[in-house]
Amino acid sequence: MAKTAQKHRETKPTPPLSDAAARDDTDITALDLPPAPLTPAMEAYFARCEEKLGFVPNVLKSYGFDMAKLEAFVGMYNDLMLAPSGLSKLEREMIAVAVSSHNRCYYCLVAHGAAVRQLSGDPVLGELMVMNYRAARLSERQRAMLDFAVKLTAEPWTVEDADRARLREAGFSDRDIWDISAVAAFFNMSNRVASASDMRPNKVYHAQAR
Amino acid sequence: MAKTAQKHRETKPTPPLSDAAARDDTDITALDLPPAPLTPAMEAYFARCEEKLGFVPNVLKSYGFDMAKLEAFVGMYNDLMLAPSGLSKLEREMIAVAVSSHNRCYYCLVAHGAAVRQLSGDPVLGELMVMNYRAARLSERQRAMLDFAVKLTAEPWTVEDADRARLREAGFSDRDIWDISAVAAFFNMSNRVASASDMRPNKVYHAQAR
Amino acid sequence: MAKTAQKHRETKPTPPLSDAAARDDTDITALDLPPAPLTPAMEAYFARCEEKLGFVPNVLKSYGFDMAKLEAFVGMYNDLMLAPSGLSKLEREMIAVAVSSHNRCYYCLVAHGAAVRQLSGDPVLGELMVMNYRAARLSERQRAMLDFAVKLTAEPWTVEDADRARLREAGFSDRDIWDISAVAAFFNMSNRVASASDMRPNKVYHAQAR
Amino acid sequence: MAKTAQKHRETKPTPPLSDAAARDDTDITALDLPPAPLTPAMEAYFARCEEKLGFVPNVLKSYGFDMAKLEAFVGMYNDLMLAPSGLSKLEREMIAVAVSSHNRCYYCLVAHGAAVRQLSGDPVLGELMVMNYRAARLSERQRAMLDFAVKLTAEPWTVEDADRARLREAGFSDRDIWDISAVAAFFNMSNRVASASDMRPNKVYHAQAR
Amino acid sequence: MAKTAQKHRETKPTPPLSDAAARDDTDITALDLPPAPLTPAMEAYFARCEEKLGFVPNVLKSYGFDMAKLEAFVGMYNDLMLAPSGLSKLEREMIAVAVSSHNRCYYCLVAHGAAVRQLSGDPVLGELMVMNYRAARLSERQRAMLDFAVKLTAEPWTVEDADRARLREAGFSDRDIWDISAVAAFFNMSNRVASASDMRPNKVYHAQAR
Amino acid sequence: MAKTAQKHRETKPTPPLSDAAARDDTDITALDLPPAPLTPAMEAYFARCEEKLGFVPNVLKSYGFDMAKLEAFVGMYNDLMLAPSGLSKLEREMIAVAVSSHNRCYYCLVAHGAAVRQLSGDPVLGELMVMNYRAARLSERQRAMLDFAVKLTAEPWTVEDADRARLREAGFSDRDIWDISAVAAFFNMSNRVASASDMRPNKVYHAQAR
Repeated sequence: MAKTAQKHRETKPTPPLSDAAARDDTDITALDLPPAPLTPAMEAYFARCEEKLGFVPNVLKSYGFDMAKLEAFVGMYNDLMLAPSGLSKLEREMIAVAVSSHNRCYYCLVAHGAAVRQLSGDPVLGELMVMNYRAARLSERQRAMLDFAVKLTAEPWTVEDADRARLREAGFSDRDIWDISAVAAFFNMSNRVASASDMRPNKVYHAQAR
Repeated sequence: MAKTAQKHRETKPTPPLSDAAARDDTDITALDLPPAPLTPAMEAYFARCEEKLGFVPNVLKSYGFDMAKLEAFVGMYNDLMLAPSGLSKLEREMIAVAVSSHNRCYYCLVAHGAAVRQLSGDPVLGELMVMNYRAARLSERQRAMLDFAVKLTAEPWTVEDADRARLREAGFSDRDIWDISAVAAFFNMSNRVASASDMRPNKVYHAQAR
Repeated sequence: MAKTAQKHRETKPTPPLSDAAARDDTDITALDLPPAPLTPAMEAYFARCEEKLGFVPNVLKSYGFDMAKLEAFVGMYNDLMLAPSGLSKLEREMIAVAVSSHNRCYYCLVAHGAAVRQLSGDPVLGELMVMNYRAARLSERQRAMLDFAVKLTAEPWTVEDADRARLREAGFSDRDIWDISAVAAFFNMSNRVASASDMRPNKVYHAQAR
Repeated sequence: MAKTAQKHRETKPTPPLSDAAARDDTDITALDLPPAPLTPAMEAYFARCEEKLGFVPNVLKSYGFDMAKLEAFVGMYNDLMLAPSGLSKLEREMIAVAVSSHNRCYYCLVAHGAAVRQLSGDPVLGELMVMNYRAARLSERQRAMLDFAVKLTAEPWTVEDADRARLREAGFSDRDIWDISAVAAFFNMSNRVASASDMRPNKVYHAQAR
Repeated sequence: MAKTAQKHRETKPTPPLSDAAARDDTDITALDLPPAPLTPAMEAYFARCEEKLGFVPNVLKSYGFDMAKLEAFVGMYNDLMLAPSGLSKLEREMIAVAVSSHNRCYYCLVAHGAAVRQLSGDPVLGELMVMNYRAARLSERQRAMLDFAVKLTAEPWTVEDADRARLREAGFSDRDIWDISAVAAFFNMSNRVASASDMRPNKVYHAQAR
Repeated sequence: MAKTAQKHRETKPTPPLSDAAARDDTDITALDLPPAPLTPAMEAYFARCEEKLGFVPNVLKSYGFDMAKLEAFVGMYNDLMLAPSGLSKLEREMIAVAVSSHNRCYYCLVAHGAAVRQLSGDPVLGELMVMNYRAARLSERQRAMLDFAVKLTAEPWTVEDADRARLREAGFSDRDIWDISAVAAFFNMSNRVASASDMRPNKVYHAQAR
């Protein structure tokens, strides 16, 4: 019988700041959505997460109330972030964090900030993406990539041929431009699902790769 | 043998405005991404579009350079906009257009503006969603729904418990809140893919359901 | 005896969206301002509207509570939009709609969007002006014109010599620059009168020149 | 023979700040628009200005290249600012300055700032309107009036029934609401004509009623 | 025994605008912070203010509840505004006012607007800094200086090497760049202390150097 | 003889991201300002930093080109952050980080983010302040404090009696309101000095108290 994506409760409590915190901090989201039984594919996927990461990312548990939604999310996420691309995995994570910084998304900054630290082996780079990518010492290529991603985040209606031309001058192909756009766009979606539901990251991310 | 999602060229040309228009207006996007062979599933899906709509929406052709990306997009789109939900299909389209109006996304305003006109039988409602949803005479429920979706679009970092509470007071369940959020978030993604690639809607939308 | 600009009630009701709509949708504005007797000049002007357009635009009825205000508005409007100018009537309407799009003014987008469709014979151009003029394939001249008009709308305090120089480089005379500015400025006024009073456009506009 | 609205050159030069100032500071606008012969009505009006104010306001000279435009401007301006209204002349000037402050319009802040100082006999009130109306100690009525005018200036698309209701609660009639809106809207126009043309105020305003 | 920085009450009352003004206009701030005994250094400093200016600026009295805070403020202020620098005292005051204009700080605009008028002998320049520095006819040097200061005020996260390079091209040394930055930054602090406490300027400033 | 605040070069290099990084990452600022001899007071202060922290914070070295400026900065900083106050030291650091997050100041987020982690013993709280304080589960008191500080940062011109009243309702005294304001204002200054000079934090902060 399929396992359920139980409402995960982490064991180590946050030190109480004071009298605050109406909602229990161990809930993953502010929405009461009971987990559905995992499909075999998702059960295998969660097992793979446990094996490779040591835990199931809370975003997956958040979608766990509906297997169709979970599978659609996982499908799109894995294609964007892991499939072959002219962008390295680190570059895709850098886009993820720079976009999430513009949108001040707590969940995505924690989870993908850790990914930048891990993939780059450079804890400072992770902090720079979270805090202000403009302060990082980046190659022209990576700076153009993040400028495009953040402009597309902040004022998508102003993106025009000149913006695409700047990416081509920085060495990106049209396929790369699609990938930069698609990753930036995806995190504009994810940031909003996370903020709308007050999604909480797994605490384990905080100390990773410092 | 699988058909290809050819770079679609519409036959009726736009009246030349003057000396402008460097790029040929009949291209669907500004990116040169040759179509990949359609998988059987996507070939069947395109055929169903032709049959039901009379055409294949350009957004699908835009993703047609990579079947994994096309299938992921279609999977997520159809779940969000067509699967059972506490939100009617019209309500989901209203969210799509109000979000796209904030983001001034030409493709999505044209395509989903037409959908609001068709599903509501009310051409004026479609225009209101495109122009300024605040000017529409909406039920409290639908106003709260669009206020949440547009706030989540404009300033996702400010969405908090009070915003979710307002939706609950307007009669929405936690599952409905997820669906409102997920649809608004999805169009924040789609708007950006469309703007980043200068995606052009099928011209047939313009005259539909006026 | 002079006719009055009666509080116009249109006969075809909006399909009730649900339980909403406190105020009757057939009122032209949210303000209760009883119409004044039309002066002979305004009676003639309203008659000319009926003859040429088939109806009296609601904006004129909105001003109908005070003949001095109505005459001042008509005088300025007709000079700006109809008098000889280096800008074509279509170009002036394009400015009107691009400005009204920035200000998300429902009345002006409906009424002047229809004018762009009619004067250009290009329904798509009307939609582009309503949705995002940056997505239109415009001549350099018209793009420079709209960029100036929208910058003047959004951040008038930043308009400087360099902005005027760009218009001159695009072929505009100083008199043309005045006219671009005056039309953009006028719709910044009209948009605000319309939004402040919740002015409703005549429904006939919606289907025109689609 | 009709006098012309000559390109006015003031005699007292600005102390040269340094090496700056490409354009001669004594031109009224940055646009080269030769004055047209004054119509008898405008000749009489300019004479009345000289008599009552001691000078012809530069805005009138700016419009002096085209008598139809000048007359339309004067007609609308005088009706709005001087005709009977539930708003005092001072209140209308307060709106003018608060709106012009939001739009950072040099011409209108100088000219109408002086008007507030003169009409109120309170130089400090004039400064407050120029600098930040929120810092002024206003009656609830006047605060509500300026809040509405500035909201209508900054984000006209968000003005709704609740905003009009606040004005009614502060004691304003529907006719007053129109007048507040029309004055605020007019200065949104005038601010933009002045900024677009780099209009310069008569220097005499600066020292008035200090 | 040390004199106290008494809660200063000015004698000439503001003409009552109407029924408004809950708080007594003669209080310097909205916070009830009883003055502390002046230290000898501060007593001497206040005496020097009386002697040179004819009054003690209200900002000093505002800090007078705590001598450590007053001394820290005076120390930093005097170093920044009066110590030797590649920037003239007038230039430092121009930065102060342009920054305060962006932040719409009533106290600082009144007090430092007067300083610009006095130091430049040009009342119009003072008004220009208060209203919109972009409308002033400035040298390239001073324009570059104010553009940097205002960009640093409005969007400090976007200041980068290109901005510093523009200052160097305008002739500023690295030490000058520090001074421009430090003055702009200081008024971003002062503006906020003044706005947070509703600080009121001495009325004597208003008529100075008109 | 007084030691100089040498241009500090840290030994552990940043892993080269690629071909980027024109400026040597080990410089503390982008400005070439040779260190001045430390005064005895500052020499003692730097020694105390080395002793207590193990290093001299780079912000102090940045000011080290001019002893008057360094002493003024140190004086104000220590009074604000360390002197007795109704706000705990942690609360003052929380304000510092929430303000610096709004201003996306890399230096201050790194240095004061570490301080929040250390003072609270809660690494997650530090991340929350950096990323989005609204996502933290705070007491009403601390939430009101940060809302005031961030409003004062973002739109100081809108802070009014109602904002101060909310702080009083949350239990703050008028003296506390001053302290909240002064700390928020101070970091609005510091953020801008750091961004203007591209100040780089000591690398040691990154790993502290994770």
